[in-house]
Amino acid sequence: MENEFVCWVRSQFAQNESVERGPGDDAAILRLSGQQGTVVTTDTLMDGVDFLVDQVDACRIGHKALAVSLSDLAAMAARPVAAFVSLVLPRRGGRQLAEGLYAGMAPLAERYGVAIAGGDTNSWDGPLVITITAIGQTTADGPLLRSGGQVGDAVLVTGHFGGSILNKHLDFEPRVAEALLLNSRYDLHAGMDVSDGLTLDLSRLCQESQLGTLLNLEAIPISDAAGELARQQPNSKTPLDHALGDGEDFELIVTLPASEAKRLLADQPLGIPVTRIGTLVAEQGLWALNADGKRKPIAADGYQHEIDP
Amino acid sequence: MENEFVCWVRSQFAQNESVERGPGDDAAILRLSGQQGTVVTTDTLMDGVDFLVDQVDACRIGHKALAVSLSDLAAMAARPVAAFVSLVLPRRGGRQLAEGLYAGMAPLAERYGVAIAGGDTNSWDGPLVITITAIGQTTADGPLLRSGGQVGDAVLVTGHFGGSILNKHLDFEPRVAEALLLNSRYDLHAGMDVSDGLTLDLSRLCQESQLGTLLNLEAIPISDAAGELARQQPNSKTPLDHALGDGEDFELIVTLPASEAKRLLADQPLGIPVTRIGTLVAEQGLWALNADGKRKPIAADGYQHEIDP
Repeated sequence: MENEFVCWVRSQFAQNESVERGPGDDAAILRLSGQQGTVVTTDTLMDGVDFLVDQVDACRIGHKALAVSLSDLAAMAARPVAAFVSLVLPRRGGRQLAEGLYAGMAPLAERYGVAIAGGDTNSWDGPLVITITAIGQTTADGPLLRSGGQVGDAVLVTGHFGGSILNKHLDFEPRVAEALLLNSRYDLHAGMDVSDGLTLDLSRLCQESQLGTLLNLEAIPISDAAGELARQQPNSKTPLDHALGDGEDFELIVTLPASEAKRLLADQPLGIPVTRIGTLVAEQGLWALNADGKRKPIAADGYQHEIDP
Repeated sequence: MENEFVCWVRSQFAQNESVERGPGDDAAILRLSGQQGTVVTTDTLMDGVDFLVDQVDACRIGHKALAVSLSDLAAMAARPVAAFVSLVLPRRGGRQLAEGLYAGMAPLAERYGVAIAGGDTNSWDGPLVITITAIGQTTADGPLLRSGGQVGDAVLVTGHFGGSILNKHLDFEPRVAEALLLNSRYDLHAGMDVSDGLTLDLSRLCQESQLGTLLNLEAIPISDAAGELARQQPNSKTPLDHALGDGEDFELIVTLPASEAKRLLADQPLGIPVTRIGTLVAEQGLWALNADGKRKPIAADGYQHEIDP
């Protein structure tokens, strides 16, 4: 990073007590607890794929970039500590863009006590690329893994699904506080965040737990935006289709024993609804019940990160 | 990351005992020592700026990308633990390119016990972008900071400088082992790696230490490549100019008390030469002595990461 820009970044962000050295040396030094696991996630967002720099305020892009990484920490029920921001800026207007991006990150970073502890800033003749590495620590309640699901677990989700592209994908609040609260109060077995699509991500949790899910399709919490999107494209997908496969919902899936789930659903301890959408079953894959009581397979739909050979 | 690709990446890399969970969940979990500082650095390399994907084997690009980050850990005298690799791949031939990049990282990762513990893989219609976040830990000898220099310290460097563009910038070995050895055996006050140019980076160390350096220009260890480059462009820079400002040398600068420096220079404990190039002085800036014994200022030359407004 160039010196004057480092000074500017330093001035924008409060550090926290875990940061022994922030931006300005060759690397940052964090002082972390050896008692807890250190959780690390890295996510890259690109202009033209994850946002359109010409159509969206830079603040919202900055918010999204940090929120995506914090959502991954939430998915592990980790407490956020620090974030590292790598920017590849288009040459023209790069500084102004960078300031907008950081301005969008600042309130979110402050809300969750995240120090922006370092990064790398580059310019080129190509489009904006943002990579954020977020570091957190697990709590005494342990990490929330995809692999912990057990047969008979209730499958619960936070919030509503579908139609994120209309707005939410830029403005969502990562479920950091919700994940920490659920993990501390209830005996969660498995969990993750939904970034690529409800059924696609649930199928990944099932795969890591070597189980399947019997879904109750009527129970899926469909967002208003999913309905709106279906109305805009009437001959395409239903609102339920959008909820099952749209992606970028950034809500949580958790699995836990049925009795614990009952307690949680009665408590409704979050500011947002928690809904039971199914049950973990031994038969791998995603399933729903036909009218005749037989299981039919449900396709895992969502955003696949394909790589061409 | 797509599932099959995650499996492939998992199969390529040995994990180490610090990695509790590697690729496959929403984030990695590291088990780090709370006794030592956790050192984090992130670096982004772009096609057309840091390498030319059409002209260079993908293995060399992968090597460089990881080596740049490991050099930052070396700069802090930190022991490498894990790396996180974010790729933005051109759509056509992306998988083959990714495999080449990882093949280039693998020997380097193995040499320094670095686990490739996670990452993010994306495709787009633009050029290759690689961001690597490396995580290490300081040792009982403490971190090596830019800010620790003291008046009278000898300024020493490893290796030779200049002309890196001819080859070394792709094939260099990060000075990880050298930094750990020097930091354990000698009372180092300050240090960093040289990535943007010897004088530019030295000026940054001076700035953080709020001191200057009186350089002995005759002592600068000039690489053969700097001579070669000067011969190729005879009316441009001298070999010394190249050594002072070329960048991407990825050698170390360290400062230490003169008596310690004497011992180090007599020992020559590394497989590569260590050379004294100057002395830290109270007067900020870079200086050399004229024939008349008066100080003349030396410009800080190197690669400036400019950002346009």
